[in-house]
This record gives sequence, structure tokens and C-alpha cells, in this order.
Amino acid sequence: MPNVSNMADMTFEARLAAHGARVESRLGALLGRADGGAGVPERLAGAVRYGALGGGKRFRPFLVMESAALFGLPPERAETTAAALECIHCYSLIHDDLPAMDDDALRRGKPTVHVAFDEATAILAGCALLTRAFEALAVEERHADPAVRLELISALARAAGWAGMLGGQALDLAAEKDDAARMMHADIARLQDMKTGALIRFACEAGAILAGEPATSERRAALRRYGTALGRAFQLSDDLLDAEGDAARTGKATGKDAARGKATFVAVLGVDGARRRLDELEAEALAALAPFGAAAAPLAEAARFLTRRRH
Amino acid sequence: MPNVSNMADMTFEARLAAHGARVESRLGALLGRADGGAGVPERLAGAVRYGALGGGKRFRPFLVMESAALFGLPPERAETTAAALECIHCYSLIHDDLPAMDDDALRRGKPTVHVAFDEATAILAGCALLTRAFEALAVEERHADPAVRLELISALARAAGWAGMLGGQALDLAAEKDDAARMMHADIARLQDMKTGALIRFACEAGAILAGEPATSERRAALRRYGTALGRAFQLSDDLLDAEGDAARTGKATGKDAARGKATFVAVLGVDGARRRLDELEAEALAALAPFGAAAAPLAEAARFLTRRRH
Repeated sequence: MPNVSNMADMTFEARLAAHGARVESRLGALLGRADGGAGVPERLAGAVRYGALGGGKRFRPFLVMESAALFGLPPERAETTAAALECIHCYSLIHDDLPAMDDDALRRGKPTVHVAFDEATAILAGCALLTRAFEALAVEERHADPAVRLELISALARAAGWAGMLGGQALDLAAEKDDAARMMHADIARLQDMKTGALIRFACEAGAILAGEPATSERRAALRRYGTALGRAFQLSDDLLDAEGDAARTGKATGKDAARGKATFVAVLGVDGARRRLDELEAEALAALAPFGAAAAPLAEAARFLTRRRH
Repeated sequence: MPNVSNMADMTFEARLAAHGARVESRLGALLGRADGGAGVPERLAGAVRYGALGGGKRFRPFLVMESAALFGLPPERAETTAAALECIHCYSLIHDDLPAMDDDALRRGKPTVHVAFDEATAILAGCALLTRAFEALAVEERHADPAVRLELISALARAAGWAGMLGGQALDLAAEKDDAARMMHADIARLQDMKTGALIRFACEAGAILAGEPATSERRAALRRYGTALGRAFQLSDDLLDAEGDAARTGKATGKDAARGKATFVAVLGVDGARRRLDELEAEALAALAPFGAAAAPLAEAARFLTRRRH
């Protein structure tokens, strides 16, 4: 695994891959047999691992490790927080795919968890990942200061909870039932800031929390601003992929948002308008990074990546 | 609300009701609009409150507060832990009732959450309660020592997680699919120790954790033994109620275990054998309380309550 000293010259893609490999290894341990997984029923453990290991770009873990690096923290100090966050992201994907939610059969090119196992097991596996995330943060001994661990737990719970990700998913389901076409700009923004924005904002702020920066710190506020713009860019680029992409490249069914009448900015602004908005969000994200100077180059690259990604 | 000084002369039922009122009030605040509930979508917030407020005996919170009292802690020092545990208990009920799980339409005499709202909202509401429980423990300022809060979080996560309650539910579902009648005594015991036992054991140990007793403490081990016996008695008395009770008194459909071929000790031992086993478990629970002397009278009453309860 590359260490931090020889990562300075790596491209964005190489850094994303290096952090991804590190978090994959930490996830494997957290969700493995030895480290708390003894005595777990085979089928449930299998579904948890199927839903969390060996897939995804690990974009949120990248943000945790790179925001930590801004404060001089090496990746190993941030990897448990990154893995816990990824557990929560994977749980949200498992539950979003359920028949009662988006009813998706394909995710990252594989059958979704409720298809590969069954619906009840998928519900339990999601909740197991959510629970394991908090346990991992509570027992992480590399965060020597217990107050840091508690702040990570409360911030992650707020981001994932009913005023964050879960609330956003509830709004999303309500929008599909109602007439999404009538949703106002502000309603869509609120939905997305909660559903996908909250976890991404947490990822960007996590480095500052790990470094013990107080809630009032200017650098922490800058990372929140960056995270807010990045989260919006992430959702918009995702919606553009759905509108323009094809299933072979994205590993999931596309064109589904329009078919469902889902509330997205692509539907409101059109593809060209959405692309222009994405450029604005990239500029906002880069501006927020200014206080960090050249050290923030990897996070700046992440913002550019979202603007140009095609899968 | 009665305070601790005039609670000494109260009957078990009156103490249960007094602790219940206290935890109801704490739950109301944790799940209310002011304390973190601002900005939560109306329907989701409604489902969370419907599923968690105004019902249930609050037996687990009683155990938290009474185990804390053994170490001289007043109820207000234990009430957030009690409320967090009850959030997790209520989440498990909401999810257990789902169509993909036990598919129950009635709970505590009311339509279940997925019937009163919808399936997706019930899944989200359960996860919101789980997440809120960890957030409440992380920010609870009345536990001055951050290490105590972290230990509560990790112990509760283990009890609720894939090697505890969630794992037990997975085993229970597997038992229904397979031939439950062929389940061995040891398999049923493992299932029940995980599905209902883990949270009750946590409730009994929580007082010792709140008091800062080390994991190696003899009194803490005694509470774990008490909690293990009590958890088994709780499940057995529940299964007996299902076999013997009627819906009007229990507030839920009865006789369903047998109809489903569910693995219970009543099926294995018969009703009379199960009643004898319940007496043994009561004796085990009472023996574990010996180190605490007369101070443990309320917890002893709780064990007797399970043996004689008819609803």
C-alpha cells in the first residue's frame, strides 16, 4: 500500500485507488469473522459482505482521508472513520434498492442484495452495517481523545439520520408519489442536500474533526462549504449520468429518473443548463478550498472529476 | 414525577409506571421537533413518533434505571440511556412487523407502522430510531466522562448488531423457513439469547457502565448473569402468552407462533414444562442479585413479574 510520502506525485485516479484499497482492507477487517463477526449467522454475514465489499469508487472515504491529510493526519488515522462512513453509504444503497423503495435489481453491475439473498436479509444487512459503523467509531483506539470519537459519532448520526440522509430519502419517495414536475427549485435542493449532501459534507468535515479543530474553526467551516458544493455537484453529475449514460458504463440501469418522474435538476434545467450549473458548483468548491493552498490539490481534483466524469 | 426518595415504598407496578413516565418524557424530547427534529419530513417524523411514543411497558428502561440505582445513580442520570435503548427496541418492533419479516398488522392494539403509514416509511422510521439512539448517547452531557458514553455506545451497538439482536432475527427467519420442529434446544437458546436476550442483558449491565464499573467488576458480572436469566425468562413468558393468551389482553394476535411453526421452548417443552423452566430462570435471576442484598428488591420483583404475568 503506498504511503503518504510517495502519494504526493500521484494522479487523482491513483490516489482514489490507493485510498480505496486501504479502506477496502479496513472494511474487510470490520466486516470479517475475526473482528466481531464471530457468531454472526452465515447468511446475514454473507449479505453484509456482499453489499459492502468489492465494489464502488469509495469516493466518500477518499474525501475523509484527503481532508484529514490537510491537517497532517496520515491515512491510517482516518481509515476507520472512512470505513464507518462507507458502511453507512452501503447500507443506504441496500435499503434504497428494496422493493418498497426504488425496487432496483442491479447495482454496480451485480444483482442487488435483496435479489441475491432475500428482502428480509437485505433489511437486516443494511441495519447491521449502520450499527457496525457506530461500534467501529466507538472502539477506535487510534483516536486517542474520546471527545473526538464522540464528535465523529454525533456528526455522522446527524448526517445519516432523519434530518439528514434518511429524511432526504423520505422526501424523495414523497416526490415520486406526488407530482415531481411541480417541485420547486428549493424543494429539490433541500431533498438533495439531505439525501446525498449530508454524508458528503460529513466526509469533508471529518478530517477537521479528527484533527480536533473546534466547531467554530474557519478551516472547518471552509471544508463544510466545500462539502456542500461537492455534494450538489455529485448529485447533479449522477443525474446527468442517468439522463445521458448507458447501463454498460454505469453498472446500473439508466433513464430511470425520467421514467419515474423523479425530481432532478436535469428535469428542471435541461441537460445544457445542468452542465452549466455543474461548472458553477465546481467553481464554488474550488473557492472554498482557497485557505488550504496547494495542499488541497487532491480535493480540487475531486471536484473537477465530478464535472467531467462519464461513469 | 416521583423522585427517588419516595420511590422506596412503591410497588413494582408503581415503579414501572414512574420510570415509564420519565422515559416517555425523555423520548418525547428526543423525538420532538425542538431537539434535533427541526427540518425532518412530516411523514417520517410522524411514523417515528407513532412507533415509539405512547405504548409499551417500558420494561427495558425500567431495568436501566433500576440497575443504575444499585450504584446510587438517580433516574435522571440513566434516563437518556434508557430512552436510547427503548428507541432501539421500538425500531426492532417496527422492522419485525414488516411484510418481509413477520408481516403483522397489529401491535400494542394499534395498526403497525407499515399499515398506518407505508412500508418504505416504516423501514426509514426504524433506521431513524436506531440512528437517533446513538446520537443521543454521543451528546448526553449528563455522562460527564466521555469514556462512559463511548462504552455505552459500543455495548449497545454490540447488543443490537449482527452478533446480537439483528443476528437473532436472521436466525428466527431462517428457522421459520427451515423445519423449526427439528431445531435443537441449543439452537433455540442461541436464537433467543441474541434476538431478545442481548438488549435485556445490556439494559441490566447499563447501570454498572453508567457508574463507571470496570468490565472486570464482580458486580457488573452479576448484573450480566441476572440479565441473561431475565432475558430468557422474558422470551419464555412471551411465548407462553402467545400459546395461552388472547389478543384482547396482549394487544396483538396470539397463537401465531404455532401456526407458523416458530421455534420456541413452549413447542419443545410443552406448556407445563415451559412453566417449570420459567420458575428455574426466576431462581437463577434472583440468585444473581444476591451480592446487592435488599437494594435489588425492584429487580427481583421484575423477575417475579415475568413468571406471573398474563398480559
